Amino acid sequence: MAKVRVHSFGLSLDGFGAGRDQSLHDPLGVRGFDLMEWFLATRVWRAMHGQDGGETGVDNRMAEQGFANIGAWILGRNMFGPVRGPWPDESWKGWWGEEPPYHVPTFVLTHHARKPLEMKGGTTFHFVTDGIHAALERAKAAAGARDIRIGGGASTVRQYVQAGLVDELHLAVRPMLLGEGEPLFAGLDWRAVGYECFKHVAGERAMHVFLRRKA
Amino acid sequence: MAKVRVHSFGLSLDGFGAGRDQSLHDPLGVRGFDLMEWFLATRVWRAMHGQDGGETGVDNRMAEQGFANIGAWILGRNMFGPVRGPWPDESWKGWWGEEPPYHVPTFVLTHHARKPLEMKGGTTFHFVTDGIHAALERAKAAAGARDIRIGGGASTVRQYVQAGLVDELHLAVRPMLLGEGEPLFAGLDWRAVGYECFKHVAGERAMHVFLRRKA
Repeated sequence: MAKVRVHSFGLSLDGFGAGRDQSLHDPLGVRGFDLMEWFLATRVWRAMHGQDGGETGVDNRMAEQGFANIGAWILGRNMFGPVRGPWPDESWKGWWGEEPPYHVPTFVLTHHARKPLEMKGGTTFHFVTDGIHAALERAKAAAGARDIRIGGGASTVRQYVQAGLVDELHLAVRPMLLGEGEPLFAGLDWRAVGYECFKHVAGERAMHVFLRRKA
Repeated sequence: MAKVRVHSFGLSLDGFGAGRDQSLHDPLGVRGFDLMEWFLATRVWRAMHGQDGGETGVDNRMAEQGFANIGAWILGRNMFGPVRGPWPDESWKGWWGEEPPYHVPTFVLTHHARKPLEMKGGTTFHFVTDGIHAALERAKAAAGARDIRIGGGASTVRQYVQAGLVDELHLAVRPMLLGEGEPLFAGLDWRAVGYECFKHVAGERAMHVFLRRKA
């Protein structure tokens, strides 16, 4: 059965999924990019960016799993871009250039309507203004038998977790301190909502932890 | 030079160093004992409790390091026991029976005076009522050239970190959710205080992360 998954979500030791002050210059907030260091060295990442080589160890295997069998993505608006408030025009097309790494229908949560945006390589961004449940329904319809991946950021993941709508999460815990930023856990009792850890794997640059919603 | 160290401090994935509602029944709070699961399987733990056997892998090596070259300990009062407020009598002598695992002078932070308590095996509990700095000075005098180990709990560790008095910390991050309890990081910007991660080692049942105060 199709699952709703979070995968390759980088987390600092002190519990942040992004740094503070996200901007055009710092898509993951101040120092937030370091959360992805485990990913940058992998063959998967390099192939996504048209480069050869890269490591093929545990971190790479974890990254690979994140792209297997995904039929639709859901992104928070901040993960789509740094623009806030109503869209001034159609010029912002995501952080990823002409060919984003999604290659399937991708639903962007926003309070401000915008018409769908078709990109190269199979990604179409759909802007959903009627909330997380509506976005998930549309993503499920688009994905069919395949899984839905919730890309982030932290706030979007928390909303779906709090509603009990995420089946499985993979977190890449990085041995680093961000100090401040977007908390993943603080202020939300994941255990009470019904989540548990069920697996962990040591990677080269992160501890990979898997959580699921208890049956 | 002698260091002030925190070692073998168990931390849940969601950032808690103990569960809620510490009590005689739950010295580490509700479900907090699971934080120590990495330690219970080790040869070090078993030897401390007069048992043979136990694992001798990475987790065991980490546990061993925590007892090397320690000349004095500092404990928060909750780590010493569940008694709150003024000491009703001298009957509470710690969680550890007649021979506690410290074997050196051990300074207990409390607001309520009590005369020193000499136990078997070299541990003497000294009750310090004039704050964390005073306790550290006394511990340093007692330890001489050896290190001071700050045992915990989370609140005691945070106070010493916030004051910049801890040189090095070893955290054993467990792949588990506590949901609620005593936070180690939340509400305190460790990075701003001057701490950084400098090493991590994958253990059998925990990710071992080392932090230090930047020079």
